[in-house]
Amino acid sequence: MRELARDSHFTLNENAMFFECAYSCDNALFLRLDERAFFITDSRYTQEAKESIQSKNGILAEVIETSDLVQGAIDLILKSSVKKLFFDPNQVNLQTYRRLDSAIGTKITLEGVPNYHRQKRIIKSEHEIKLLKKSQALNVEAFENFAEYVKTIFSQERLLSEQFLQHKVKDFLTRDGLYNLSFEPILALNANASKPHALPSAKDFLKATDSVLLDMGIKYERYCSDRTRTAFFDPINFSFKREQSFKDKEHQKIYDVVKKAQERAISGIRAGMTGKEADSLARGVIVECGYGEYFTHSTGHGIGLDIHELPYISSRSETILEEGMVFSVEPGIYIPGFFGVRIEDLVVIKNSKAEIL
Amino acid sequence: MRELARDSHFTLNENAMFFECAYSCDNALFLRLDERAFFITDSRYTQEAKESIQSKNGILAEVIETSDLVQGAIDLILKSSVKKLFFDPNQVNLQTYRRLDSAIGTKITLEGVPNYHRQKRIIKSEHEIKLLKKSQALNVEAFENFAEYVKTIFSQERLLSEQFLQHKVKDFLTRDGLYNLSFEPILALNANASKPHALPSAKDFLKATDSVLLDMGIKYERYCSDRTRTAFFDPINFSFKREQSFKDKEHQKIYDVVKKAQERAISGIRAGMTGKEADSLARGVIVECGYGEYFTHSTGHGIGLDIHELPYISSRSETILEEGMVFSVEPGIYIPGFFGVRIEDLVVIKNSKAEIL
Repeated sequence: MRELARDSHFTLNENAMFFECAYSCDNALFLRLDERAFFITDSRYTQEAKESIQSKNGILAEVIETSDLVQGAIDLILKSSVKKLFFDPNQVNLQTYRRLDSAIGTKITLEGVPNYHRQKRIIKSEHEIKLLKKSQALNVEAFENFAEYVKTIFSQERLLSEQFLQHKVKDFLTRDGLYNLSFEPILALNANASKPHALPSAKDFLKATDSVLLDMGIKYERYCSDRTRTAFFDPINFSFKREQSFKDKEHQKIYDVVKKAQERAISGIRAGMTGKEADSLARGVIVECGYGEYFTHSTGHGIGLDIHELPYISSRSETILEEGMVFSVEPGIYIPGFFGVRIEDLVVIKNSKAEIL
Repeated sequence: MRELARDSHFTLNENAMFFECAYSCDNALFLRLDERAFFITDSRYTQEAKESIQSKNGILAEVIETSDLVQGAIDLILKSSVKKLFFDPNQVNLQTYRRLDSAIGTKITLEGVPNYHRQKRIIKSEHEIKLLKKSQALNVEAFENFAEYVKTIFSQERLLSEQFLQHKVKDFLTRDGLYNLSFEPILALNANASKPHALPSAKDFLKATDSVLLDMGIKYERYCSDRTRTAFFDPINFSFKREQSFKDKEHQKIYDVVKKAQERAISGIRAGMTGKEADSLARGVIVECGYGEYFTHSTGHGIGLDIHELPYISSRSETILEEGMVFSVEPGIYIPGFFGVRIEDLVVIKNSKAEIL
């Protein structure tokens, strides 16, 4: 990988700018020009920006106040001697690009590199790994606190719709608003878990012997967690632990295949493998057991400031897995109208192996 | 305004495509080519798309399944005889544009028009106005239900942080998950309301005689509501009604100025005015009373499928207000470290006047 730390570049993406200077807001442009950096924003945010921005690689971004971010950037770029400016063409809209290009394009090369800023974040620092661990630990706690709550209110004979449960779990995840969600939780009962994107139903109510798929995460100091469990609803012993006993034999068989696929991947992943090879560890198990056509997504995705970032663990990923990369391992089997299972944990590549966060 | 209904165009924006065919999902491209329309998406959504899509202007979009939306669009465009294809350059990223342009650019003009799809939605139909009214009615109910709840739990001597209240109000807004939020609610106590973008505090607790600014809304059948009240917290008679009595005289004075400014705008707005003229009705009152520098945003924004859409009611808006336009009227005064007030309602232009939704 080319050394990116000294490039001149710009971004309007909040997580990308946060990575560069430890601050972001929803109307700002971060601009690095040779050995200087600028945080361009409007008057609502300049005070907070000055108080919050931290230096990176020895460079402290200067806060520039303007009512027109792109014009602010153009003025600074034209005064600099920069020859090439990197950006991510997936994160810049055509209107913004055209304004920049027509003002500076003859003097400076605007170099669009897909995933440019995510590429810079693909290897996590020790500090980032600590935050991701803490985020996931809080997430794990929320799974268990929520399971206890469900047992309690179910025993009071309340009708619990999928929609109500999906809403309620957010109290446990966010600790009544202390943390933000990393994405809208997915809570699906029984066959609903086989639809990858169904909305929570107001008409399906939790019953004993149901299965419950729960996929959720929070942000801790902006770092995302993500975890999925599929559990059998026994009103007495309900829990989101890995070991689950389903009443239906076919359900149990499918669950065990997914569990084995995930374990095979986690124990088999090594630094130096490609994302594709890692994907095939989990996929191989599911295909061997005859469920290949029902594993309809990739095995995992990187995670950090974005809930989905590099590296991708998919059947097309040529990315070489390296020490310090953090990603999910989340095989699943989804049989339409019958049953859906997914089991997801996060791992970090450490001592050349995958270690669960 | 040019007649847009027969244009060929494309969009990847969910609300824009929903407007065209009554369905959307998070991985789709809507393409109109002369007298045909296409909903291009991946295998996760094709079934639901076929069941949900409705015809518009007599044209029923055909569902096209692909794993590459842009390539799917290119194939269809090249087979058509279209000469010009409209899109919104603020809603298309450079990467997507470049792929389209290099594949079809010599044959077809790609015509980027900022706000192209929002322009089509600027006049609301009777049906849309009905949905917006219902959305706001549910929102108003949530304000009052929440006020009752706050009185009850305050009387139990619980410590209620701004952060807890901001989290809790979402239960009332969404009816425990039945409706989606149109945006993250803003709940700010006292001087916190003077910071336009402060996060809810875990350290500021509700006390008698506090002021409470609450700005929130939901989506009802995808149509957004939006409303703000600033209320005096009297533990016995707390309510988000328009008439408020503050203990502090300067607070009351500021509140009355904002209220007068909003009333002046709502009673004075007429079809045929520009957005700028409507803005000046509210701004004029605030400037006359000496608070002009503390009214730091525009008077209002259009609302519909997007929480912010056309027309804008700002000091720069040349848009002519027409029958059927729906927008917010929300003047405010924000004195840093002291007090903040905003009062917001939605109006529709009907019989040439502004009628509150």
